[in-house]
Amino acid sequence: MDITTLRNKLSQLGQEHLLEFWDDPELTDDLRRSLYDDITSTNIEEVLKFFETSSSNLNNTEKVDERMEPIPSELFGSVTRSGKNLDRWYKDGLKQISQGKVGVLLLAGGQGTRLGVKYPKGMYNVGLPSEKTLYQLQAERILKAQELALELTGEKGVIPWYMMTSEHTKEPTREFFKQHDYFGIGEEDLVLFEQDMLPCVSFEGKIILDQKNKISRAPDGNGGLYRALGNCKILADMERRGVQYVHVYCVDNILVKMADPTFIGFCIDKGANCGAKVVEKAYPTEPVGVVCRVDGHYQVVEYSEITLPTAEKRSEDGRLTFSAGNICNHFFTTEFLKSVVNENESRLQHHVAQKKIPFIDGEGKRILPEKPNGIKMEKFVFDVFRFSNNFAVFEVLREDEFSPLKNSTKSEKDNPTTAKHALMSLHHRWVLNAGGNFIDSDGTSIPAIPRSSRVIEDQLNANRRAHDPDGYPVTCEVSPLLSYAGEGLDKICNGNKFCPPILLNQANIIAEKQETIANN
Amino acid sequence: MDITTLRNKLSQLGQEHLLEFWDDPELTDDLRRSLYDDITSTNIEEVLKFFETSSSNLNNTEKVDERMEPIPSELFGSVTRSGKNLDRWYKDGLKQISQGKVGVLLLAGGQGTRLGVKYPKGMYNVGLPSEKTLYQLQAERILKAQELALELTGEKGVIPWYMMTSEHTKEPTREFFKQHDYFGIGEEDLVLFEQDMLPCVSFEGKIILDQKNKISRAPDGNGGLYRALGNCKILADMERRGVQYVHVYCVDNILVKMADPTFIGFCIDKGANCGAKVVEKAYPTEPVGVVCRVDGHYQVVEYSEITLPTAEKRSEDGRLTFSAGNICNHFFTTEFLKSVVNENESRLQHHVAQKKIPFIDGEGKRILPEKPNGIKMEKFVFDVFRFSNNFAVFEVLREDEFSPLKNSTKSEKDNPTTAKHALMSLHHRWVLNAGGNFIDSDGTSIPAIPRSSRVIEDQLNANRRAHDPDGYPVTCEVSPLLSYAGEGLDKICNGNKFCPPILLNQANIIAEKQETIANN
Repeated sequence: MDITTLRNKLSQLGQEHLLEFWDDPELTDDLRRSLYDDITSTNIEEVLKFFETSSSNLNNTEKVDERMEPIPSELFGSVTRSGKNLDRWYKDGLKQISQGKVGVLLLAGGQGTRLGVKYPKGMYNVGLPSEKTLYQLQAERILKAQELALELTGEKGVIPWYMMTSEHTKEPTREFFKQHDYFGIGEEDLVLFEQDMLPCVSFEGKIILDQKNKISRAPDGNGGLYRALGNCKILADMERRGVQYVHVYCVDNILVKMADPTFIGFCIDKGANCGAKVVEKAYPTEPVGVVCRVDGHYQVVEYSEITLPTAEKRSEDGRLTFSAGNICNHFFTTEFLKSVVNENESRLQHHVAQKKIPFIDGEGKRILPEKPNGIKMEKFVFDVFRFSNNFAVFEVLREDEFSPLKNSTKSEKDNPTTAKHALMSLHHRWVLNAGGNFIDSDGTSIPAIPRSSRVIEDQLNANRRAHDPDGYPVTCEVSPLLSYAGEGLDKICNGNKFCPPILLNQANIIAEKQETIANN
Repeated sequence: MDITTLRNKLSQLGQEHLLEFWDDPELTDDLRRSLYDDITSTNIEEVLKFFETSSSNLNNTEKVDERMEPIPSELFGSVTRSGKNLDRWYKDGLKQISQGKVGVLLLAGGQGTRLGVKYPKGMYNVGLPSEKTLYQLQAERILKAQELALELTGEKGVIPWYMMTSEHTKEPTREFFKQHDYFGIGEEDLVLFEQDMLPCVSFEGKIILDQKNKISRAPDGNGGLYRALGNCKILADMERRGVQYVHVYCVDNILVKMADPTFIGFCIDKGANCGAKVVEKAYPTEPVGVVCRVDGHYQVVEYSEITLPTAEKRSEDGRLTFSAGNICNHFFTTEFLKSVVNENESRLQHHVAQKKIPFIDGEGKRILPEKPNGIKMEKFVFDVFRFSNNFAVFEVLREDEFSPLKNSTKSEKDNPTTAKHALMSLHHRWVLNAGGNFIDSDGTSIPAIPRSSRVIEDQLNANRRAHDPDGYPVTCEVSPLLSYAGEGLDKICNGNKFCPPILLNQANIIAEKQETIANN
């Protein structure tokens, strides 16, 4: 350890405080070594350059309203307005899957702080009848997409599953999948890699110490993807496998359609090298970013970047002009990713978030500040939209495809209960549309649109077993191995009566059916 | 008291059990007299006829899908699609008001059971900075509408306020208004009347005893309006005043636009004698009734009456085909109401709701049943749509016009907090659109689209006084006496900075302005 050289270098960079506790009697030789390694393995010049560039944006409240345009209609597809094209796109997507050209990429570097768990979010079980975790639901949807592709084409293609984790989530994720035999996914088809961590910096540009011997760090945002794709040789893996199209998504959406064939087929049809799946913004002040063009480049504009009149602007058809709500669900060609990684990544600027960052004070005490005392620097996955000259946007229905698990049950929104209900509502509708009916334990038909539990309890026997304890009246789950998006349920459902709770899967479907018939 | 004749009559009607406790030693002469009066004042034959007709619908699960059509587009107006007509309708509505041709009619017979209060819902204070009750907000909106009409035309018209109460709500309501000097409304312009109560009946058609000496009764639904309009001579009062157009609404919508000039002008322009204000249904399984045509007649179809495929049906523009969500906000001409009361009311059938109705058992004990044991019979205010040959539907924005207060804070939906936030969000947007800006106590600009408190707390000083304790970040209220729908705020707001909490009203507006300027 050449401490003198290090001290001189740090001094030149204005970061000599990182060695402030070097001679502290508490620091053993081992701890000193770890501090030395921590500092020397950090590209401090780069961090300070990032800080300089990004912190100039810190108090940027410039509005982009004047420069914004909606996505041109010819680049826009929609499950509610694209009619017969949908089937063509779906089939083309499945063909690409059967040829092994499609991969999925999961952004799973987050720590689940808001959800209140210490393990990776994907390991969360929202309390479905099957007790499946988010990871298992996703794994089984991959398997089913492969099966549908095989059925259509006679060819078996594999969808490799790339998973960007972080320092905190990589090992628990790997261990979890191992324990569960990868939920039927080939071990070699699950590719874990790790995003970078970046030091946290004070408003004055000083790197913050988390411990006397440890720099405070945070993941570099989901846009850290592009650095990691290069550093971890993921692009090379994609090329080796012949993956041409990548479907990128966030771990927390319980309804996510893995490798969605329709979305992929749509993007390919539009000749897009980059695409976004969106949901219609529900009302002008909904806090959601919108996909649009700014100065001719595609971009997600955050809600804090626009004024109210722009947010309220409507087209002649009455829809919001800027209605393409970003749900972190994207399409990229491998070619496009390659160009980003090799040419454009360094042009991406970090966004800064003011945070309350624990730090070591002058007396060596660790402080949890009450006010923001520094910044975390992050890139966003959608920052690369602006490099695309062939962009496309596909609008889907929120109730069918988007229900993020962000918060604990203490919050009223985007929590385990709302996620579970969203999935059960979707599956309930699948069964109804396949000709199934739901009945109560006393044989009474349950209406298609469930009443709130409050009303039901008022009007009917409170003990009916159809009720979910959290209030959603129809407890219904369909295994992804049985149906990817509601297809193929007619044989099992048509004309049949089901008495909730029901869990339809391949193994118990026959027994379940017989039992429900016997119950009537 | 001719008890023998009564007993014979009841016996013929199968209701002799009503006198089961006549000889009970607990019943004093006074109590016996009250029972006698209770029974003899009831038109039992009519009740049984209602029961017979309506109970045949009890287990009617017939779906009306096949017979449903959406509202024809030529009868449909919309705040987002009717463009320049909106201003014309608004001005015409104000003209009608200035000529004294417009009345408002409040449906306020409900007991607020779900809200969990013992007093009429209109007396509820959701916790706005002003602490105003729903009744006061409504009263002040009436006054402001009259003022706007006067400003436009130079003529002063009065909007009489008819209020249908029930046995439970009439006296407390009258007392409340009296205590508050009618909130500036002329005492003679507030016309309270009472809807009927109907006996509750067991599934077997026996009228239920609530006490040994008292029949169990419930209000006859908001459609009891039409009987009450006749019985209480309200139509005659309307004619005497020259009221030609009546705006009917429910007490619980905190955003209700009283005597909405645009809606009234629209309905008149369409030549409608009956109209409904609606909001776009948010998703196919939203539990809301939709306004449509069935067999050529206008009707609200309840969500339990349609199948999922019909609820999910979409037009070419991607919108739900049946999207006109009923919000209990209607327009009627006095002529139409007269024809209903005089000719058609008796053709309306009661709807039945299975309820848990307290009753006196064979031993004379009062029982609170655990399962539904009888029915309440109700008519609905919208049942008369089918008598209209000139109908019109006007779609408004939910975030601007509809936020019902139905439940206590224990529920996540439609509770005092959601109502308060809806109103504050609307007023916040008024101020922004009038050129105002909001700043934090440290002078930082608050973005137009407020972040959730969770994020704010994470990123900024948790102590900023802009925060509403319930989580909505911008506490902003504008007195109805200052602005009816956002108009007229430019002078006060344009270019000004406001530091929440703010309450803009006529009295303090100048002081408030100076204070906020001084604070910067």
